[in-house]
This record gives sequence, structure tokens and C-alpha cells, in this order.
Amino acid sequence: MADTPAPWQATVLSLFPEMFPGPLGHSIAEKARQSGLWSLKTLDIRDFASDKHRSVDDTPFGGGSGMVMRPDVVDAALASVEDVPGRRIYLSPRGVRFDQAMARELADGPGVVLLCGRYEGLDQRVIDARGLEEVSLGDFVLSGGEIPALALLDACIRLLPGVLGTAATLDEESFEEGLLEYPLFTQPREWNGMSVPEVLLSGHHAKIAEWRREQAEEITRERRPDLWERYRGSKE
Amino acid sequence: MADTPAPWQATVLSLFPEMFPGPLGHSIAEKARQSGLWSLKTLDIRDFASDKHRSVDDTPFGGGSGMVMRPDVVDAALASVEDVPGRRIYLSPRGVRFDQAMARELADGPGVVLLCGRYEGLDQRVIDARGLEEVSLGDFVLSGGEIPALALLDACIRLLPGVLGTAATLDEESFEEGLLEYPLFTQPREWNGMSVPEVLLSGHHAKIAEWRREQAEEITRERRPDLWERYRGSKE
Repeated sequence: MADTPAPWQATVLSLFPEMFPGPLGHSIAEKARQSGLWSLKTLDIRDFASDKHRSVDDTPFGGGSGMVMRPDVVDAALASVEDVPGRRIYLSPRGVRFDQAMARELADGPGVVLLCGRYEGLDQRVIDARGLEEVSLGDFVLSGGEIPALALLDACIRLLPGVLGTAATLDEESFEEGLLEYPLFTQPREWNGMSVPEVLLSGHHAKIAEWRREQAEEITRERRPDLWERYRGSKE
Repeated sequence: MADTPAPWQATVLSLFPEMFPGPLGHSIAEKARQSGLWSLKTLDIRDFASDKHRSVDDTPFGGGSGMVMRPDVVDAALASVEDVPGRRIYLSPRGVRFDQAMARELADGPGVVLLCGRYEGLDQRVIDARGLEEVSLGDFVLSGGEIPALALLDACIRLLPGVLGTAATLDEESFEEGLLEYPLFTQPREWNGMSVPEVLLSGHHAKIAEWRREQAEEITRERRPDLWERYRGSKE
């Protein structure tokens, strides 16, 4: 019997475990989970509350609106998964930006433990004591870390070996080269008075590749000067 | 009888309508929907395919791996919601970055029509013909636009009038001032050998506000030089 490789382990700590697998319970991610390529374990943070009311939050010291998640409760939840391998990530708009490079790093590891915040956020002491990495999906505010956790997991899962058909699909796509993707065209060849660009019908592979690169460069330059500067720097 | 204001209309076009409301079917968003503050309509793009196989995609002209969503099918799906008010957004990693300012703009409008891509992406001609806005959640690749759509909707829904308790909660939080949020502390006052910073227990509101601003500035300067530069520019 051949050894089955251990699946990539996703562990999610949340006050709303019922939100998982959510969208990851369909399509590619669901098939991959059924094939044993990754596993999902969800924990309800409320199960680690120690008082009779199962309180997980309290008012912030120093005043202000909203509630803050208690350090002792969150710490107990994290302690319960101490043996689970992988980085500990707290999804928070204060964190470093999640990007494709981080997705690849995480996908190359044994899995990830994700802590989803709710309310105003988490007591700073448990972030420090547990050395949690703060990771942000972007400069916007959501009602909790659950949707960011789903996004992070989706980005990682599709990079796991065996999940997508061809490595080529992964190599060619957005961000792997530091450029936004070139425009795509498919059937019908004439649609709504618009044709497919002639070069794509030429069968001339080098010319097609050149056209696509030019298009990708132009779109990146126009839409994302920050990516464009980095790309130009990497070519020098 | 008082007029009930029309709810904010979320319309989602997807090949996986069963992913919705997903996480938005719980907690704050679900309560707000039940209270009539927003409505959700999902359409299955496959219902607009015209051939007997219900094809929605085909191979890309010019070659390459992966499939591309057909312009005619996507156009028919968009035509079916022509009367629905709101901006037309195609979630795509080539788009402009979604941020809190865009969330606020969208929340101030009548709603939004979201097109979720799958496969390699969408034929460029339907993006052009329909003048779709391309919006990106960040520099990472997901298996489809569904999770980004959930994130975008969550960010908007919590800004709708009546969804969150106090306007103060919204005003004080991340990005509304251009800074990352200061550290938070709650009960217990002593935990794991760590105390709450003395100033937060002082009851001196001006000193607390000053300390929080200093902390927010320091965290922003360290973690997000880009936000820090913009914030400094706005103060001059």
C-alpha cells in the first residue's frame, strides 16, 4: 500500500463556525476536500468561555463603542489546537496584506490555523502572547474574519498539488509574473459586431505571446502603477 | 402608514448561485436582510446558455490552458437584470482595488449588480459592451468571484443605515481616518502576567485619545508606509 500524503490542514477558530465550509463546500474546493487533499476543522470560540454566560467579549478599557474579544477565551481556543501544525493567522484589517506570494507560502506548508475576529477586534495581549500574524485582505472593514478566512483558504487550496488540472494554468495567470492578465476571447468569433483580435486567429505562437505581453503590460501600467513599477524594477 | 424605504438591492450573477447567501445568511447580514434593509437576488448564469449542452465557456482564441466565459451567455444574463439599479461590477484580479471608500459609495447607492467570473475569466467584448467595472479584492487568485462578492456585500451591508447600532462604531474604525486601528484591551485587567496600559484606566479622556492616536500612527507607519504617506499628506 502506498502512503497517502497527509492532507493540508485548515483549522478555523470562529464565533460562527456554521459559516464554514460555506462556499468552499462546492466546486473545486469541495472536490479537493473529498479527495483528501485538504481537511477542515472548525472550532467555536464560545466553547472556550469559562463563565456561566459563555461570554467571549467585554467593553474596551479606555472607553469607546463596540466590544473586544477577551484574551483568556481566545487563548484557550488557541491552546486547544497547539499540536496542529502551521502558521497562526489572525485576520484583521491592521495586518499585512494577503497576496499570491503568501498564498503560495501557506500552500507549501502543512496547513494554517486561522483566527476570525468579531466585534471591534481582539485584546492586544493575546495577539502578543501567541505571536499571532495579523493578515489583512484589504483596506476595508468587514463584520468579521470569516469571509477573509474563506478567501485565504480558497487561494491556498487551488495551489495544492492535484487540485487543478495543469500546472500551466497556475503559471500563466495573474500575479505570477507581476502583471495583470491580458484580455481573453472565446467563441463566438463574431459577437455583437465585435471580432476577436486578428493576431489571436493567426496561429503564430510567438506573435500571440508578444501581443499578450504587450496587452498585459499596458493594462498593468494603466490600472496599477504600483505593480508596474515593481515589474519594471525586476526587469532591470 | 409610513413608507418603508426600498431595500438596498444585491444582485449576483454566478455559476454557483448556491454559494449565496452563504456566510451572509448568518449574524448581522442575515438579521438586516430579515429586517428588509437589503435584498438578495441570485441568478444562475448557466440558465442563459442557448445551446442544448448549456455551455457557458469555451477555449481561448490564441491558445492557452483553461476556459473563458462566453460573451453571449454573460450578456444575456446581464440583459435580464437591465432594470435593476446600481453599478455593474465584475470581480476580477485585473480590477481596481476594492476599499472602504468604494464600500461607502456603493452603500450610499441603490444596490449593486455583481458578476462572478469562473475559469480563466470573461471574454473581453462583453466587459467592453456592458461597460463593466472591474473590481479586485487584492493581488491574489481565487477560484471564482463568489467569495470576493461576499466580501464586497458584507462591507456594504454593515454601512447601510440601521444595520449597526451606533454611527460612532463606524466613524472610529479602521480606514475612516486613514490610519490602522490602535490596540484594544478588555477584561481581565491582569491576564497572563500582562496588564492593561495604565493610561486606559486613568479615566482621562483627552490623554486616552492622544495615546490611541499615537499608537494608531505608530502601527500605520510601521506596517503600512503607503497609508502613512497618504495620511501625512492629508494633514499638511
